[in-house]
Amino acid sequence: MDNRLAKLSNWLKDEKVEFVFINSVTNIYYYTGFTCKPYERLVGLLVFSEADPIMVCPKLEEEQVIQTGWSYRIISYQDNEDPWEMIQESIARQRLIPTIYAIEETVLSYERSQKLQGLFPSASIVPADEVMNMNRLIKSDQEIKAMIESAKIAEYGMEVGIQALREGITEIELVAHIEYEQKKKGVRHMAAPPMALFGKNSGHPHGKPGVRKLEKGDLVMFDLGVILDGYCSDITRTFIFDSVSDQKREIYETVLEANHQAIESCKPGMTIGEIDRISRKVITEAGYGDYYPHRVGHGIGLEGHEYPSLHQDNGNVLREGMTFTVEPGIYIPEIGGVRIEDEVLVTKDGYKLLTQYPKELQVIEGNSSGIPEGV
Amino acid sequence: MDNRLAKLSNWLKDEKVEFVFINSVTNIYYYTGFTCKPYERLVGLLVFSEADPIMVCPKLEEEQVIQTGWSYRIISYQDNEDPWEMIQESIARQRLIPTIYAIEETVLSYERSQKLQGLFPSASIVPADEVMNMNRLIKSDQEIKAMIESAKIAEYGMEVGIQALREGITEIELVAHIEYEQKKKGVRHMAAPPMALFGKNSGHPHGKPGVRKLEKGDLVMFDLGVILDGYCSDITRTFIFDSVSDQKREIYETVLEANHQAIESCKPGMTIGEIDRISRKVITEAGYGDYYPHRVGHGIGLEGHEYPSLHQDNGNVLREGMTFTVEPGIYIPEIGGVRIEDEVLVTKDGYKLLTQYPKELQVIEGNSSGIPEGV
Repeated sequence: MDNRLAKLSNWLKDEKVEFVFINSVTNIYYYTGFTCKPYERLVGLLVFSEADPIMVCPKLEEEQVIQTGWSYRIISYQDNEDPWEMIQESIARQRLIPTIYAIEETVLSYERSQKLQGLFPSASIVPADEVMNMNRLIKSDQEIKAMIESAKIAEYGMEVGIQALREGITEIELVAHIEYEQKKKGVRHMAAPPMALFGKNSGHPHGKPGVRKLEKGDLVMFDLGVILDGYCSDITRTFIFDSVSDQKREIYETVLEANHQAIESCKPGMTIGEIDRISRKVITEAGYGDYYPHRVGHGIGLEGHEYPSLHQDNGNVLREGMTFTVEPGIYIPEIGGVRIEDEVLVTKDGYKLLTQYPKELQVIEGNSSGIPEGV
Repeated sequence: MDNRLAKLSNWLKDEKVEFVFINSVTNIYYYTGFTCKPYERLVGLLVFSEADPIMVCPKLEEEQVIQTGWSYRIISYQDNEDPWEMIQESIARQRLIPTIYAIEETVLSYERSQKLQGLFPSASIVPADEVMNMNRLIKSDQEIKAMIESAKIAEYGMEVGIQALREGITEIELVAHIEYEQKKKGVRHMAAPPMALFGKNSGHPHGKPGVRKLEKGDLVMFDLGVILDGYCSDITRTFIFDSVSDQKREIYETVLEANHQAIESCKPGMTIGEIDRISRKVITEAGYGDYYPHRVGHGIGLEGHEYPSLHQDNGNVLREGMTFTVEPGIYIPEIGGVRIEDEVLVTKDGYKLLTQYPKELQVIEGNSSGIPEGV
């Protein structure tokens, strides 16, 4: 059995859990290499403590499961068949009467949890979320390599975006151009829709690109990330278009200092909450504490946002091989926002940045040519 | 209160359910107009039988909730705060001790359902999925208008794709080009990643575009859909590049006949399963029954795939105002696949197609220019 599956099966043995039902697309990919498109159809992976794993998938996905090299049993079903009955039969055939099974409590729907409880009414349920988060938490060298390549494409998008800045371009034109250029590099999916926000629009941390036209003096915030070979990237940089006011410069320098100090603190043993608090202290002391309405960052890997959450009360500690974002920001609705986000890898005695794009304040002069002709 | 919310509140009164907790991004949008980006953070809408609704959202989304015109209470929380405690307090302040509440059983995670059960341990749970599906099932004239506009952009992508066909172009180049051209029209999100599959790759109903190069004689399958003003489109057409074999022509004509007969049958009162069976009969009689591994279609609206599922055993009937896809297909791994998909609206005495793209077999001659220079 593959290493990752074997590790999970061993956890089941240790915990005396007979099987785990895995339903999240990402975890199925992590343990099997199979990228499924379930839509509303059921795709599931059953991993047992004492037997070979079983994949459950719609008939129309079966061929693709086989193509990923899956050599164990597949339960495949037509759209008018009930996969739950097939799961029940299959487990009964193993002469297994489960007493404890595990699910992804944060992912599995209430309805599906009820289906399982209907199949095994006398069994109790334990969460498998944490063990799978912990399996995925520490990245291998190969995973780090994939994440660096993914970050490079995100940064390439930043270059493309800056080159295309000109007075009057809209946010939505800009993000379409960035995404297209990234996809021409072989990217198939964005980790999140590319974000380019101008002026006041950047004053909303989760703003949406629209038809706002770029004006002189605007803050320009790019938040970009792609998925490459399964691994996500996520980088934010903020620029000023044409000319910068003293206040915008002050906000920028404050966020940059918060980004620097928080990242500099990263090393094994450091408390996660402390990273947030360091960034928050810089911003609060500069008088902008009320304008920093989010945590300093989040884990990243197969998902753009994954375990852990880097909020100020998180008492867990950093470990070598963890990867996460550090992204303090200040958002003032009437002026705009600045966020500077990097991806950090915890190393043996400190950290390494997976994102390399320069962070010093850049005032971008309008490029009269903008997006190349004919595009 | 807005009509849609009032209708839901009335359902609660009728069913003697004190409140519903809505967690799905789509349903929150349907009832409030708020498009949230929750990631792993909790966004929820509480609708009561006897009180005003409450929105629960992260602090960093609050401003955007207000911008959508939300005039009721908002419970907003920081990343280190517990929104569940705030929900509990807020309900206690109403002097409400719930005895029955509703959730989206197919959407809400097991963990979140447990959180609610922890807050209200003596209350029982009922599903709200069906009532919300039924609320969304019958589309208003305004919704139909939005769906037609969305379908037009999907069809524009088809035009763009055909224009770009030339020997040697890869699937992934082609879909990047299509998506870019659609986004230049103001589309922000795809309903699903655009699909272009060549030759044998089209033999997998859920295949993924890759680096396969277009060759003479290839089947070329496009499955395209965008989201415009919240509404999804979904259309599939299959073409032949350069020259067509007799077998491919036979497959094509069989699928086209199945598409025609299934669509022609649509009218109020018709059993949903019958639509599938009509399409399946055509394909089975032509000897390809084993190569049609999926249902004939699915509902479409705010979601690309939504209620109902058009599988052969669905005994529900069509009603005026329902919108769904009809998309029979034949997939032969060694040859390729043909799928022809339209969006159908049930009218007072029949149906109307929301997709208009021609369906007769088209043999596309290689366009030597392909994607315009400089792109």
